[in-house]
Amino acid sequence: MKLLEDRIRKDGIVREGNILKVDSFVNHQIDCAFIAECAKEFKRLYEGEEITKILTIEASGIGIACIVGLEFGVPVVFAKKTKTVNIANDVYTSKVESFTHKRTYDIIVAKDFLKPEDKVLIIDDFLAMGSALHGLIELIQHAGATIVGAGIVIEKAYQEGGQMIRDMGVRVESLARIKAMHGTEIEFID
Amino acid sequence: MKLLEDRIRKDGIVREGNILKVDSFVNHQIDCAFIAECAKEFKRLYEGEEITKILTIEASGIGIACIVGLEFGVPVVFAKKTKTVNIANDVYTSKVESFTHKRTYDIIVAKDFLKPEDKVLIIDDFLAMGSALHGLIELIQHAGATIVGAGIVIEKAYQEGGQMIRDMGVRVESLARIKAMHGTEIEFID
Repeated sequence: MKLLEDRIRKDGIVREGNILKVDSFVNHQIDCAFIAECAKEFKRLYEGEEITKILTIEASGIGIACIVGLEFGVPVVFAKKTKTVNIANDVYTSKVESFTHKRTYDIIVAKDFLKPEDKVLIIDDFLAMGSALHGLIELIQHAGATIVGAGIVIEKAYQEGGQMIRDMGVRVESLARIKAMHGTEIEFID
Repeated sequence: MKLLEDRIRKDGIVREGNILKVDSFVNHQIDCAFIAECAKEFKRLYEGEEITKILTIEASGIGIACIVGLEFGVPVVFAKKTKTVNIANDVYTSKVESFTHKRTYDIIVAKDFLKPEDKVLIIDDFLAMGSALHGLIELIQHAGATIVGAGIVIEKAYQEGGQMIRDMGVRVESLARIKAMHGTEIEFID
């Protein structure tokens, strides 16, 4: 998505260690009108697919997912992060590894909000190592629901997550795919 | 807002200890189309006010704030919760007490995203003891920005937060104000 690549080039900040900060329009501060354009693109990409629910993970995925939910006309469910193993009977749970924070945590979603008949589109801001996305896929599998695919705003395609998830047979649509970052220069996959 | 009161009566679950769960349409699962109706009501209430930014707090406020941001045509900034005192020079910080989780945490917002010239509308899902709202007000004050007011989806008017914040001279508009809960019966302030 040209509009997004231009915006990343303009407002993204590249930090040492292949870190890309898009705090000014994707997370922390969210440019809602711009994200609405991204939502339209997800709608176009998943045109013709039946989708009944959008699933994301707290916190930075929620805002984007809600704008996408508005575009698709379906509710959004967000998986909650929890530090304690949740043995409650009324939630589905899976594990996510945070490479940034170097720890593993559980994510949960109430069984009430993910049903076998649901056709789920996963939405998230970033895809890098794919751990969060993998955890969300597992929640959908636990529920016996259908995974329609994933819509990612920015994929760090130099990391293995995207390949790993696609190899599972899950459709992944990323609006911008970063091939490499050299200094402050960002190279995208067309 | 009649629509919201009806929805709370229909889908809200009252639990022991004056707990109201609206997980099925406000938090955890978000009914985006319904929240868009709430956003229109906030727009009507703050008609004529200049607003340049919406401020909320992670996690459950973010989705609602983004739908409101879309309605107002302004960006959303969400304050992040942090367990460690943040001494970074590039953030504003304040304290929030969680009565549910019985602990105090710091909230931060990057100075880049809250400027003296900003006219800020605070959006949150709940107002009870007012600690989160108070913390957000402090962040705006630290930035030297203008507080236009707060837009709250559900106010537990039997708790003191609303009064406390209004006594500070801050405009608070709550779409539903709960006077009392008796068993599963919910009484609203008209």
